[in-house]
Amino acid sequence: MRVYFDNAATTAMDERVIEAMIPYMREHYGNPSSVHSHGREVRTAIERSRKKVAELLNASPAEIFFTSGGTEADNTALICGIQTHGIQHAITTPMEHHAVLHTLEESAKKGMVKLSLVEVNNQGEINLDHLEDLLKSNPRSLVSVMHANNEIGNINDIHAIGTLAQEYDAFFHSDTVQTMGHYAHDLKTLPVDAIVAGGHKFHGPKGSGFLFVRKEKKITPFIYGGAQERNMRGGTENVIGIVGVAKALELAYEDMSSHRKHVETLKQRFIDQLNENIPGVAYNGLSADMDRSLYTVLNVSFPPSEENSGMLLFNLDLNGISASGGSACSSGATVGSHVLRALGAKAERDSVRFSFSRFNTTEEVDYTITKLKELYSVIA
Amino acid sequence: MRVYFDNAATTAMDERVIEAMIPYMREHYGNPSSVHSHGREVRTAIERSRKKVAELLNASPAEIFFTSGGTEADNTALICGIQTHGIQHAITTPMEHHAVLHTLEESAKKGMVKLSLVEVNNQGEINLDHLEDLLKSNPRSLVSVMHANNEIGNINDIHAIGTLAQEYDAFFHSDTVQTMGHYAHDLKTLPVDAIVAGGHKFHGPKGSGFLFVRKEKKITPFIYGGAQERNMRGGTENVIGIVGVAKALELAYEDMSSHRKHVETLKQRFIDQLNENIPGVAYNGLSADMDRSLYTVLNVSFPPSEENSGMLLFNLDLNGISASGGSACSSGATVGSHVLRALGAKAERDSVRFSFSRFNTTEEVDYTITKLKELYSVIA
Ligand SMILES: Cc1ncc(COP(=O)(O)O)c(C=O)c1O
Ligand SMILES: Cc1ncc(COP(=O)(O)O)c(C=O)c1O
Repeated sequence: MRVYFDNAATTAMDERVIEAMIPYMREHYGNPSSVHSHGREVRTAIERSRKKVAELLNASPAEIFFTSGGTEADNTALICGIQTHGIQHAITTPMEHHAVLHTLEESAKKGMVKLSLVEVNNQGEINLDHLEDLLKSNPRSLVSVMHANNEIGNINDIHAIGTLAQEYDAFFHSDTVQTMGHYAHDLKTLPVDAIVAGGHKFHGPKGSGFLFVRKEKKITPFIYGGAQERNMRGGTENVIGIVGVAKALELAYEDMSSHRKHVETLKQRFIDQLNENIPGVAYNGLSADMDRSLYTVLNVSFPPSEENSGMLLFNLDLNGISASGGSACSSGATVGSHVLRALGAKAERDSVRFSFSRFNTTEEVDYTITKLKELYSVIA
Repeated sequence: MRVYFDNAATTAMDERVIEAMIPYMREHYGNPSSVHSHGREVRTAIERSRKKVAELLNASPAEIFFTSGGTEADNTALICGIQTHGIQHAITTPMEHHAVLHTLEESAKKGMVKLSLVEVNNQGEINLDHLEDLLKSNPRSLVSVMHANNEIGNINDIHAIGTLAQEYDAFFHSDTVQTMGHYAHDLKTLPVDAIVAGGHKFHGPKGSGFLFVRKEKKITPFIYGGAQERNMRGGTENVIGIVGVAKALELAYEDMSSHRKHVETLKQRFIDQLNENIPGVAYNGLSADMDRSLYTVLNVSFPPSEENSGMLLFNLDLNGISASGGSACSSGATVGSHVLRALGAKAERDSVRFSFSRFNTTEEVDYTITKLKELYSVIA
């Protein structure tokens, strides 16, 4: 059996998304900037995609800009938000994705802004009082707080944070890469200035995404070139990526509640069976709290074990199970998780993020539990 | 008949490129950064693509970085070239694509560099003496001169320019978007520090491309995020774009000389028939010089005509012929051509760029000439 439990890293494309893209690989190949018939039919597809995304999010098409993914969208919102609005101070959390954290650290290093980090507790919860203190002493800051964390799944109250940001005249960007397509965003009521999406997190293509920037907070371009994206992003459009991300979002909204119900069942079953079968199991952050974490993400902290220490992901992989994570010090081949470090997670415990999609099944959960029982020698 | 003569804007994808991409839409969906089996098989595809591109260009895989297209690659080379190497002065030409011109103008506006433009004559030829003067008074500049112009097709002698740049210790970037895949680039002998490609100009996907940066001139990232592209470009990779652009380049090199021969025949036939049939026809830049212009591009300057003035592209479109261009003051729906203006082209003449690919036929040339004869009322 081959099990894919790494849906927070990327998802399999929906066949209907692929079918929507293929005509723009074969028949409709014009450049959307060309005014002739070959160009116009492609221009129409892009603007139809933009309108669809805007409708689903309750935004205006003029507020949606297609990008090469979540990372470019984050870079654009942050760097151009700072530059356009003459911002001197940025506030973020130690739990952000590197697309935000590295970008702001780099901007600070270049002297564009001063950077402050909001305190989080060992569950990854943001200290809102500290955030307010920071805003009080630095009004007109840029605030960047993710909607949900990609490693531990914590959902932040971006409604409360956005309201606070507004009070102190801040530019509020939220990295919504992990919630887009899984939760509904109503941009008429959500107090954010910029949010972002990566299509591949909700069964769309990799290398696709978009940026929402509220009309009143318009920013200058990040990539300079032609007049594409209403002069907001130079470069011939990734037409199949745009058509794909819009179709994926449309499908996500179409069956969001059934998708959610299905995946929640998987996650709850996984938790129940872990609790029952792996003595000493625990969860990082709010991961096991069904109301305050992504239904797609479960970050499990395994008890220390000779056999699996530092090898758990590898052992799972040998059994055909794909998951992500690692300990607080080293994750796979990489340099460890800054998120787990921020929580003060213990280095001797192996942490694994299992992340689910609507394509997963209860059989896959049960198979994975069986293998985990074997690995932890809890054979019935 | 529907004729596509706008191949300098974008090309139809080769079916073999599409076939190479589709497995990475359906079966192989892992995130290349994931260390498990789903991820590894995709990582392999990316590194195989990088190796292929490097081999074809006679570069090292560590010098090739995949981007979202030519524009992002240009922005990266210019902005990060300037920042990394502490460059104070940039030199470019008034004929560059907006991906270069707007980027450098913006950098100058932000005070990052001073910007100088090299003189060009009314054929679009670069004044190399002036370039040398500029380099003499501003050593350690960044020089950005395109390999071939996308509107008039002029090919610049980037070997000579690069040699000059080296002499004055400059960073030499050349926008090779229009020559990549149509001419062979040997980066062992070509004295450039950075060149770029957009996959859609040689029958690959839109939204794909790459940047070559010579090892000795390594630059910092433009987009910050994860450790992708050897820490040079954050963001989950556009896997199908990468597989597609590499496959397209491979195919381009495979039949470059037959492709070239075929397209040259079309271009020569077009010129001959225009000369024969349209009194007063002329050509912008070096466009009609088969040795000094792109074999893919012919930029025609039509004599003043009541019926067609400002309407020629539209009239061609009505006849099913897709081409680009416009006069020196207004081009289609856009604001006119800065390239034609730089040449001092006359506003009362309609200019049209016909651009060809290996998918075009002599029948299409003949059909277009027939229609042009009708439009200019030179009916036999
Ligand atoms: C000379 C030149 N440079 C840069 C670009 C931009 O490339 P892309 O469209 O892939 O962003 C183009 C084409 O649009 C071009 O012709
Ligand atoms: C929270 C978060 N932000 C940003 C990104 C980057 O998005 P992309 O991979 O589309 O560049 C990711 C995913 O990798 C993510 O999980």
